[in-house]
Amino acid sequence: MIDVQNSKDDRQIPIDKVGVKNIRYPIIVLDPKNEIQHTVASINMYVNLPHEFKGTHMSRFIEVLNKHHGEIGINNFLGILEELKAALAAEAAHVELDFPYFIQKKAPVSGEESLMEYRLRYRGEVGGSQRLFLVGVTVPVTTLCPCSKEMSARGAHNQRGEVSILLQFTKFFWIEEVIQIVEDSASAPVYALLKREDEQAVTERAYENPMFVEDVVREVTRKLAAHGNFPWFTVEAENFESIHNHSAYAMVEWGSR
Amino acid sequence: MIDVQNSKDDRQIPIDKVGVKNIRYPIIVLDPKNEIQHTVASINMYVNLPHEFKGTHMSRFIEVLNKHHGEIGINNFLGILEELKAALAAEAAHVELDFPYFIQKKAPVSGEESLMEYRLRYRGEVGGSQRLFLVGVTVPVTTLCPCSKEMSARGAHNQRGEVSILLQFTKFFWIEEVIQIVEDSASAPVYALLKREDEQAVTERAYENPMFVEDVVREVTRKLAAHGNFPWFTVEAENFESIHNHSAYAMVEWGSR
Amino acid sequence: MIDVQNSKDDRQIPIDKVGVKNIRYPIIVLDPKNEIQHTVASINMYVNLPHEFKGTHMSRFIEVLNKHHGEIGINNFLGILEELKAALAAEAAHVELDFPYFIQKKAPVSGEESLMEYRLRYRGEVGGSQRLFLVGVTVPVTTLCPCSKEMSARGAHNQRGEVSILLQFTKFFWIEEVIQIVEDSASAPVYALLKREDEQAVTERAYENPMFVEDVVREVTRKLAAHGNFPWFTVEAENFESIHNHSAYAMVEWGSR
Amino acid sequence: MIDVQNSKDDRQIPIDKVGVKNIRYPIIVLDPKNEIQHTVASINMYVNLPHEFKGTHMSRFIEVLNKHHGEIGINNFLGILEELKAALAAEAAHVELDFPYFIQKKAPVSGEESLMEYRLRYRGEVGGSQRLFLVGVTVPVTTLCPCSKEMSARGAHNQRGEVSILLQFTKFFWIEEVIQIVEDSASAPVYALLKREDEQAVTERAYENPMFVEDVVREVTRKLAAHGNFPWFTVEAENFESIHNHSAYAMVEWGSR
Repeated sequence: MIDVQNSKDDRQIPIDKVGVKNIRYPIIVLDPKNEIQHTVASINMYVNLPHEFKGTHMSRFIEVLNKHHGEIGINNFLGILEELKAALAAEAAHVELDFPYFIQKKAPVSGEESLMEYRLRYRGEVGGSQRLFLVGVTVPVTTLCPCSKEMSARGAHNQRGEVSILLQFTKFFWIEEVIQIVEDSASAPVYALLKREDEQAVTERAYENPMFVEDVVREVTRKLAAHGNFPWFTVEAENFESIHNHSAYAMVEWGSR
Repeated sequence: MIDVQNSKDDRQIPIDKVGVKNIRYPIIVLDPKNEIQHTVASINMYVNLPHEFKGTHMSRFIEVLNKHHGEIGINNFLGILEELKAALAAEAAHVELDFPYFIQKKAPVSGEESLMEYRLRYRGEVGGSQRLFLVGVTVPVTTLCPCSKEMSARGAHNQRGEVSILLQFTKFFWIEEVIQIVEDSASAPVYALLKREDEQAVTERAYENPMFVEDVVREVTRKLAAHGNFPWFTVEAENFESIHNHSAYAMVEWGSR
Repeated sequence: MIDVQNSKDDRQIPIDKVGVKNIRYPIIVLDPKNEIQHTVASINMYVNLPHEFKGTHMSRFIEVLNKHHGEIGINNFLGILEELKAALAAEAAHVELDFPYFIQKKAPVSGEESLMEYRLRYRGEVGGSQRLFLVGVTVPVTTLCPCSKEMSARGAHNQRGEVSILLQFTKFFWIEEVIQIVEDSASAPVYALLKREDEQAVTERAYENPMFVEDVVREVTRKLAAHGNFPWFTVEAENFESIHNHSAYAMVEWGSR
Repeated sequence: MIDVQNSKDDRQIPIDKVGVKNIRYPIIVLDPKNEIQHTVASINMYVNLPHEFKGTHMSRFIEVLNKHHGEIGINNFLGILEELKAALAAEAAHVELDFPYFIQKKAPVSGEESLMEYRLRYRGEVGGSQRLFLVGVTVPVTTLCPCSKEMSARGAHNQRGEVSILLQFTKFFWIEEVIQIVEDSASAPVYALLKREDEQAVTERAYENPMFVEDVVREVTRKLAAHGNFPWFTVEAENFESIHNHSAYAMVEWGSR
């Protein structure tokens, strides 16, 4: 059977990334409370292709994925990239993994528990001497506008916002730590289930802690920088403004990688 | 040249809708302030297909669209459906048109003007003796929670929400009328541009007008029902809750069609 | 503590649906091969609200969901709706559940197995004497154009399409049966992993089975109607046309409910 | 009136980008055939914020936008960024603009004309001595698989794909040139309207020009590099595979900026 992909290419153009995109796949990740958690990921997998080869072998990407039966975590992620690089005889491999992650969260007064969704991201790159692994998380929060509070006789506009972190780390950590830092840095956390007494507490806490998007990214930056485990990171905050039809947005990049 | 579509089909299965979906097309609509407005629509166009024909002629849908050079409005919409029905020798035609519509809106105190986006929908159906034309609009609003206000010492959670109307009408109307009804029925309207004095006014107005999604759909229903021009309609309200990671939602269907 | 939601409303407007929308939640569903499957659902939960009550109690929706620890399937789905109706003291309850579902699928020649994603939908409604349960599935397929094949010296345009079913059923069934019917009714099935010999087989099979969207919906309709377990259903086919920038679409509604 | 945003911040954390996101706005762009074209853009506008200021003034972003009445093009885009920088007293400004752009396109045999949608992107950055302006476009194309053609007795799988370019340029150019390069580099172009004779021609052209995503990005790279006006660019190709439930993807970055 002819191997068209292996035939020669003489255009002298190496390809930076080639592979498969938007695969949906059930995965199992580590969870500090329940040991493991089942979720469903969206996956992109790429390798480089030297200029002399016509094409890559797309089916091998899926075979590498299947070999791991969906057990993917911070501990074996870069190993999967190394396997991908080897299976495709490439010099570099890139994998992007996005998945929802659920944490049992207690309401602040009633203590009622419910599952809260966070969105996680893994970004990996291996090639030559480089082994890069970035972990990201998007955390929904409440923000209450300091300017609106200051000027208004009563009340203050507030809204749901999202804080997105992407970070490099030195040693293993639980994403719960980073989520805690973000939730402590907004006007108030967001919950899946609140009873009336909880709603009161969250409303009052937000009113006591007015925050611009600028404040949120600075607070998170200050704490992540002080943490010691994160040599490089970005912090983005987006407010789905309650008085506008667009978002307010702020971003800080910190450290070096 | 063989006409495969015109060949016979003997499976005895008539097709309710067949046609083209997700066409993007620049259109011109009427605007009470500037006479016309240019925008870009997403369009679906279908006809029925009797059981004895194998296929429809997809290119004719686009030809009907092109004939009108994108001039589409409440006045000629059903006429376009009649043409589509004739061009395809069908018994029924259905067209769905979604597009952003912009209105120059004054901030409540400073009077500064800015463009605010609303999303419009046309839904048409002609066939036999039926000529159905539904017009829809989605209006972003602010809602402030009555329960949170009642219980909390200070402040109250509020958020952006969206109110979506779909209605049947008796005689020509401007969508601006319906948008006004919706904006008057929420805790406060939403704006593209607010100066500090406007932000104060909007914050205080929202605090004075707490509204559940239930209240919003009832207020809008009451006013649309009293208006006289709308024999049937639905009202949906969705709050992008500032304290939760999900939406609160309410829906009323009113009248008969 | 004041219960604002329980206060009286005198606008005389009953609300058809009120509740929570776009909750993401990990669920466990039955799977004929592995007994259970873990996945992540998007959930909407609504009840009706009689005209005399001001508001519903949103937190109770989440409590009903939590009580089941995410174990949701065809066998207990309507039971959950009954609980929801009772918990909210409502006359009617509606739940919508959308989730990805994975099936181990063998490539046609090499026999290599890989996970293929299908998107499932549950739609339930209980109220008065009515208990309605609709199950839906979206199946990706290949379609090859009969007209293009007939006219062209060599080749024929083909593309990925999606077939979406929504059906009422008389007795328990596995969704795998319906997926099989759909995949047998297109030009060829779609796979997550194909080796070269499989790619050849799929290409040739598609070329031997040219299908318009009209053909696909008729074939599926014929088989679902003959099956006996499905008194009412809709079949939609959408082709992401390879030669156009829009979709071709067809829809049949069959039977009565 | 207190200006909360102008108050001092002592956290020593400068903010890289702060501003407004996801504004929808009607714009007018230059068009070589009709002089101007009306369309609707999604806009993000950011400036930097030195560490000593608490917040930026969000309403000024919209004011800058309004001043131009939506007349935005390659010729005045960086000027708008300079105004934004001045209006916010910032050191750097960033603007992102995405909009659909329509071109009247002739079917290859019948010559029938129809409007085809392309998606354009402007990315601008001014600050210090830097003035960066990137223009992007996404072009839908047909790709036919060389491997499938080689191995199969008859037919070959093909699909709609998208080629996305982002480029830096030396002097004014029409995006039509770049679109032409992309459409010439795929198996065949995609059209909004094709009569039967056109469908035959497109089918046969695609069969004669089999292309992997790897081939497409190399062909486009070769031509853009040879063009002379584009010192830096990226080329991405994504195939919505007709035989798979995921995409094939390739990317090349070329030149330096």
